[in-house]
Amino acid sequence: MKSMYEAGLDQNPANYTPLSPLSFLRRSAMVYPQHPSVVYGDIRFTWSETYLRCRQFASALQQNGLGPGETVAVMLPNVPAMCEAQFAVAMAGGVLNTLNIRLNADSIAFMLKHAEAKVILTDREFSGVIREALQQLDQPPLVIDVDDPVYQAGALIGEIEYEEFLKQGDADFDWQLPDNEWNAISLNYTSGTTGDPKGVVYHHRGAYLNAVSNSLFWNMPQHPVYLWTLPMFHCNGWCFPWTLAAMAGTSVCLRKVQSDLIYQAIQQHRVDHLCGAPIVLNMMAHADSALTEGIDHQVKVMTAGAAPPAAVLEAMQKLNFEVTHAYGLTETYGPAAGCAWKHEWSELDMQKQAELKSRQGVPYPMLEGLMVADPDTMQPVEKDGESMGEIMFRGNIVMKGYLKNPSTTELALHGGWFHSGDLAVWHDDGYIQIKDRSKDIIISGGENISSIEVEGVLYRHPQVMEAAVVALDDEKWGETPCAFVTLKDGEDLSVEALIEFCREHLEHFKAPKAVVFGPLPKTSTGKIQKFRLREQANRLND
Amino acid sequence: MKSMYEAGLDQNPANYTPLSPLSFLRRSAMVYPQHPSVVYGDIRFTWSETYLRCRQFASALQQNGLGPGETVAVMLPNVPAMCEAQFAVAMAGGVLNTLNIRLNADSIAFMLKHAEAKVILTDREFSGVIREALQQLDQPPLVIDVDDPVYQAGALIGEIEYEEFLKQGDADFDWQLPDNEWNAISLNYTSGTTGDPKGVVYHHRGAYLNAVSNSLFWNMPQHPVYLWTLPMFHCNGWCFPWTLAAMAGTSVCLRKVQSDLIYQAIQQHRVDHLCGAPIVLNMMAHADSALTEGIDHQVKVMTAGAAPPAAVLEAMQKLNFEVTHAYGLTETYGPAAGCAWKHEWSELDMQKQAELKSRQGVPYPMLEGLMVADPDTMQPVEKDGESMGEIMFRGNIVMKGYLKNPSTTELALHGGWFHSGDLAVWHDDGYIQIKDRSKDIIISGGENISSIEVEGVLYRHPQVMEAAVVALDDEKWGETPCAFVTLKDGEDLSVEALIEFCREHLEHFKAPKAVVFGPLPKTSTGKIQKFRLREQANRLND
Repeated sequence: MKSMYEAGLDQNPANYTPLSPLSFLRRSAMVYPQHPSVVYGDIRFTWSETYLRCRQFASALQQNGLGPGETVAVMLPNVPAMCEAQFAVAMAGGVLNTLNIRLNADSIAFMLKHAEAKVILTDREFSGVIREALQQLDQPPLVIDVDDPVYQAGALIGEIEYEEFLKQGDADFDWQLPDNEWNAISLNYTSGTTGDPKGVVYHHRGAYLNAVSNSLFWNMPQHPVYLWTLPMFHCNGWCFPWTLAAMAGTSVCLRKVQSDLIYQAIQQHRVDHLCGAPIVLNMMAHADSALTEGIDHQVKVMTAGAAPPAAVLEAMQKLNFEVTHAYGLTETYGPAAGCAWKHEWSELDMQKQAELKSRQGVPYPMLEGLMVADPDTMQPVEKDGESMGEIMFRGNIVMKGYLKNPSTTELALHGGWFHSGDLAVWHDDGYIQIKDRSKDIIISGGENISSIEVEGVLYRHPQVMEAAVVALDDEKWGETPCAFVTLKDGEDLSVEALIEFCREHLEHFKAPKAVVFGPLPKTSTGKIQKFRLREQANRLND
Repeated sequence: MKSMYEAGLDQNPANYTPLSPLSFLRRSAMVYPQHPSVVYGDIRFTWSETYLRCRQFASALQQNGLGPGETVAVMLPNVPAMCEAQFAVAMAGGVLNTLNIRLNADSIAFMLKHAEAKVILTDREFSGVIREALQQLDQPPLVIDVDDPVYQAGALIGEIEYEEFLKQGDADFDWQLPDNEWNAISLNYTSGTTGDPKGVVYHHRGAYLNAVSNSLFWNMPQHPVYLWTLPMFHCNGWCFPWTLAAMAGTSVCLRKVQSDLIYQAIQQHRVDHLCGAPIVLNMMAHADSALTEGIDHQVKVMTAGAAPPAAVLEAMQKLNFEVTHAYGLTETYGPAAGCAWKHEWSELDMQKQAELKSRQGVPYPMLEGLMVADPDTMQPVEKDGESMGEIMFRGNIVMKGYLKNPSTTELALHGGWFHSGDLAVWHDDGYIQIKDRSKDIIISGGENISSIEVEGVLYRHPQVMEAAVVALDDEKWGETPCAFVTLKDGEDLSVEALIEFCREHLEHFKAPKAVVFGPLPKTSTGKIQKFRLREQANRLND
């Protein structure tokens, strides 16, 4: 029997609406129609214009046959069309798959096939790669060119240009919220420890909640001016396109991440928020002081992927830039934890501040569970700052799962927690700190490189017998791949030749920067001891 | 067949957690354990202490037999126990019913019976009323006294004192989030247009979302210092206890709303946020200037229930108090709309600003729908600032429904919208503005008075033939009830005698302040024309 608090008190259209970040777009267009939404070169859009363009885009997608739950891929830098795609595809009932613009044709082709993309938006700069990828497909998608006036090299390869495509759409298009907040909103491929990329699926509920969680964690005010130094193809720009809709902010688009362009934008538009991998902060910290002259307002900077070093923090602080360290994975909608700063810490010396700030921290406001635990027993480790365990996440900003990959999904989410693969300690104040990067991932310039993928290529070389790839610390890139290789008996091969071989079969940034020939250390059961190789690799730096 | 974005991508404990404001308490206790949560007289609690006390409280409730979905009533002013009840009852799986401390024994008895309250917390000041109410019950609840050191008049009438009760509880109590976010979290009775109060049921999802929505709408920073000038028995303090948990803020409790106490608290604790009915603002604006001397920080003030008059706004502005006008009803978790302010409006003269600020505005960030519509056709009115319609709400911060009242619930939510009963126009910029208060409600000092309830008492007088009650504008109270009465043939009765009769049968604040004898204006079908009476009433003020 129903309790009295349940009887006659069911969900209905008056009191229940699926959570979706699309609601934020609609509200900002209504409340702040004249407020700038997007700035790029000479382009200025307001929230009412962005809303109108998104409705046109969504309508045109449906008119061109996009069905519910079908995929629209985009291969775009941070241009206005990329902002619009974050809403319009979902408004059409579709799922947005943002492709990493640094990938090669094979990877792209794999993703377009796997996601069964029906439409792809592309840019002149990537027309070569996309054309090559499309040739590998039996059922190529509709190709739409975004003809960016700022970049006129490369070719147009599509059937229609984006602005023309929009014109096909109805500006009054009666789009609908998803009928279920669990419906997919986007798909983000990530290189994992297995060979093939995994397609991380986000739903409307999680996108809505992490968009708000960004704002709460970062104490964002109404109308932030946000510079797009973070690729929107990374976890949907860490959900920030949706955060900016919730806060009626302004997206300052940036095609290329360069110090001069960054500082010009900061000055010109009074940018007050930006995100970026540590390499971006590093670049900003080392920029010519002429670029930073005259900036008289505070800029808040969020970084993730690795701890910002003390020297960078200090340089940023001198510029009146406030750095926040966040932590997350593609599987957690981008940042889902962060080093929540305490007032009293600002009194400490810079070295101590950097130490505290290097911690990955505490759950995001809307993440319900974060722990460091033994992955076998699922028991949390002691909060002693020494006991190691695996970082695990649970709650509404953990992915729906991996597309077409139920066994890997189950493995990643088993025991009721998402297993990050990152090894950490838990401090007595409840802050977590990564002590060892997940065994097989190398993070180079903010990009994930699967060591297994690189090893796969090494193994394809006819003279290679065994290979293992680990991360090598790198001042510029954070990490680079370092290969340990045993050649077949009697074979001889130069480091240069092997690296060249890798560059032929991989995106260049994935190729090893160092190669060490010799026998590989193994356990008694024959498993390669990567931790020894890591030690050895980092002695190369000494 | 499931689409590829659904297959193998179901909800599970890793990626789905019911939304509940209890998660915010847990997080603030973990991240900011030493930050002050509650300040009251000499009492100081931190977030870790509040969390511990709530666990004890919840544990003690369960030990004393409170079952899932059972009601705990509280008759308390804004004291620390009242803050704790907002969390602990839900942590025990129960539903919190906060009673309006101005009600009389009959009303309280009705509510305790209707809600089947198993426990009641009460305060010395209300021991007389509560004792009288309990005598009307066949199955009286467990009575717990909150023995406030600040108020030592009145009696202790319970079986146990609150602090003793907490000691029975387990500080490590393993409380659980609700298994369903649709579960009830609280019950708030509201006087509607019908005689009996209606029990508005809130669920965890809505409480979570409106708590965050408060913070987004008001641009609250981390660690706000919030003064409790708004009764926590009104819509769970407009959800602010939960907002403060989300933002790790400090509740400055206040037993009695008086200018001197308010300004002392603002000075002593550097209060930066407070809420209150216009009568509170009015009192603050007219306070002795000695009280406000030395306040050198900005205080943000949110008001709802009626538009703040220009003179009050001006006085507040001089004090560097920034007033925000919000709008909502008990059925919408308190504020669910508000006059979102635009920078450029601050340039206008004070009269124009007051005019703009008097509008009820736009949807809260997490309200999905707000419209002014014809209640018969459900068609929105023109956005011309002239066409009148009824304000309607839809979305996740609309109540679950009325307890044990499916027909009234259906009526209130029919057509997929909550019908507010408030009549408004819709301006061309999308802001709504109330033009006529809902026909039958009088809002006096922030309290709802049902004209029908007052009429019911008038009709019980042996000499009264007909009666109608409308709102009379009042400088101090906002509105007071004004009765129009036709006596039976040949009868004679004084205004004083009739008012005295009402005071015997009603809470004093509900008794009419003015009585006019004579015939009542009616339509051709015999319905009393209240709009004419309202005109007539307000001529009394001239």
